[in-house]
Amino acid sequence: MPRPGGEREIIARIRQAAGGSGDLLVGIGDDCAVYRTSPDRLSLVTTDTMVEGVHFDSAWHPPFELGRKAASVNISDIAAMGGLPRFALLSLALTPAFDGQWLDAFMAGFLAVLAEQGVALIGGDTVQSGHESVLSVTVLGEVAENELVTRKGAKPGDVVLVSGVLGEAAAGLALCRSGRAYDPHWQPLVAAHLNPVPQVALGRALAASGLVHAMQDLSDGMATDLAHICAESGVGAVVLAENIPLSPVLCKAAEVCGHSALDWALSGGEDYQLLLTAGEQQVASLCSLVREHTGRELFTVGRIVAGNGVFLEEAGQRREISYRGYEHFR
Amino acid sequence: MPRPGGEREIIARIRQAAGGSGDLLVGIGDDCAVYRTSPDRLSLVTTDTMVEGVHFDSAWHPPFELGRKAASVNISDIAAMGGLPRFALLSLALTPAFDGQWLDAFMAGFLAVLAEQGVALIGGDTVQSGHESVLSVTVLGEVAENELVTRKGAKPGDVVLVSGVLGEAAAGLALCRSGRAYDPHWQPLVAAHLNPVPQVALGRALAASGLVHAMQDLSDGMATDLAHICAESGVGAVVLAENIPLSPVLCKAAEVCGHSALDWALSGGEDYQLLLTAGEQQVASLCSLVREHTGRELFTVGRIVAGNGVFLEEAGQRREISYRGYEHFR
Repeated sequence: MPRPGGEREIIARIRQAAGGSGDLLVGIGDDCAVYRTSPDRLSLVTTDTMVEGVHFDSAWHPPFELGRKAASVNISDIAAMGGLPRFALLSLALTPAFDGQWLDAFMAGFLAVLAEQGVALIGGDTVQSGHESVLSVTVLGEVAENELVTRKGAKPGDVVLVSGVLGEAAAGLALCRSGRAYDPHWQPLVAAHLNPVPQVALGRALAASGLVHAMQDLSDGMATDLAHICAESGVGAVVLAENIPLSPVLCKAAEVCGHSALDWALSGGEDYQLLLTAGEQQVASLCSLVREHTGRELFTVGRIVAGNGVFLEEAGQRREISYRGYEHFR
Repeated sequence: MPRPGGEREIIARIRQAAGGSGDLLVGIGDDCAVYRTSPDRLSLVTTDTMVEGVHFDSAWHPPFELGRKAASVNISDIAAMGGLPRFALLSLALTPAFDGQWLDAFMAGFLAVLAEQGVALIGGDTVQSGHESVLSVTVLGEVAENELVTRKGAKPGDVVLVSGVLGEAAAGLALCRSGRAYDPHWQPLVAAHLNPVPQVALGRALAASGLVHAMQDLSDGMATDLAHICAESGVGAVVLAENIPLSPVLCKAAEVCGHSALDWALSGGEDYQLLLTAGEQQVASLCSLVREHTGRELFTVGRIVAGNGVFLEEAGQRREISYRGYEHFR
């Protein structure tokens, strides 16, 4: 019997089978689904599932931080479309090993992020599971129609930008896996893995600028995520290795772990920074506007080109890197 | 370390911790959360998680029927508040045992129910799990503000009604577990377990009547579900054993399995019929209105009283039966 070839293939099968609807603006294939609930406001909805042993290791992921992360990664999808997160639903399938003390700490972390972001927990489900715990979160948000940014608008000639250094979460995961989770030296990297920060204010500032052509959050690694933007926009992209923002502590960790820092940055996933494209003429205004409103820097990492696929240019060589991020069902 | 005492206790802890929000009308504690998205329309959202080995047994739950059920039980929550289901999100955490053929059949069943109900699949997540598959579904719906029915409005003196015979799904589950899933004699009961039907048209007709004080769907068994209405409304209820609608095939199965038919009806769960209360003076009009619009009968099973708790009156004896349905974490 045939096995699904990967997460993308399953999504493609589901997407093909799913229908549309009159007031549905964006269905499967973006960070959130988008539908109209009033003449000028759009609703956003996203859902993400985390499986014990696949997405988190309860041996070293403290419950408070896991609660934060479960909320943050969903809120990040709302941020990626320029939206304001409003409501959350939480479904917990917990094994008996997850006791009341664990649950209290998990909920404290989950609700702390919700409070920081002005999101109300409005529903969910709690059930028992036998061998592994599974956390499913749904977040609802809203956005003004003229501020919605999708993955679809990238144009040849656009500049590709990211909102922060990359690869830190992947390095943090590698450090946790190798028993270095509590080494104070690596705390920035471990924190990037355990407790990513959704870029809501930045996403809203970018969307409100009207200068962003396409945007998504970096969840699967830049190679994969930029390939999503390219596929949805019908374009290709070239990324310059020398432009990828890497922090000194990441480079140090790469040395210690015997791993490539660039590989973590391109394929590691879970950065939850924003990845966006904008017209070359607008990049300077966009960067100063973002600096002024959020104090943040944007990094130029590449360019959108005609064609398809994501290519890395390094030392005069160009090679395809599309879909090199973490993918399930592989 | 203390263990949560049960699903209700976990929900109570989460509910206490969760905040409210200006345009949130109904939060945790009803079939759906309800929030305002336009001056006269309300949005409904509900989520349910099904765990392999807990909520379904892949040995005898065919994937097509499981797909149907995953959609139906969530749509049932929208029906229970008088709403129109609109959009669905599906999160699948699948073990390697669930192959492409299984997924195709599951999706065919899931999408068949969505097509029957006019619901569009707009998002989700597919991830790998190690030991057990977990299905999480979120359904979004809408309702006019003056047609919303919650669990909160039951009043002493109200009549308690149900929309169909009870206990069949529980009997069907018992028959499946005892290897009788393919016996043609028990097909109505097996079908009630494998493929419950959400009562959307009925729920909307009841809500539009303006005569229903409180309503919910029967997912955990009437004892537990009526206790929810009583707790939310600050009232008690008395159910008359002789009024509980039982089908002849259910009574036959009870004999064969050596189980009480009444116990299945009160505590079995998964009937997905509607449970509602209405003022005594309005019951006759409500029943004839429902008959006219949907061809369906309502069954009077008891009465709302002052106080709290759900009591069963049987052969002149009265005993409390609150929360006797299926509960996880026990």
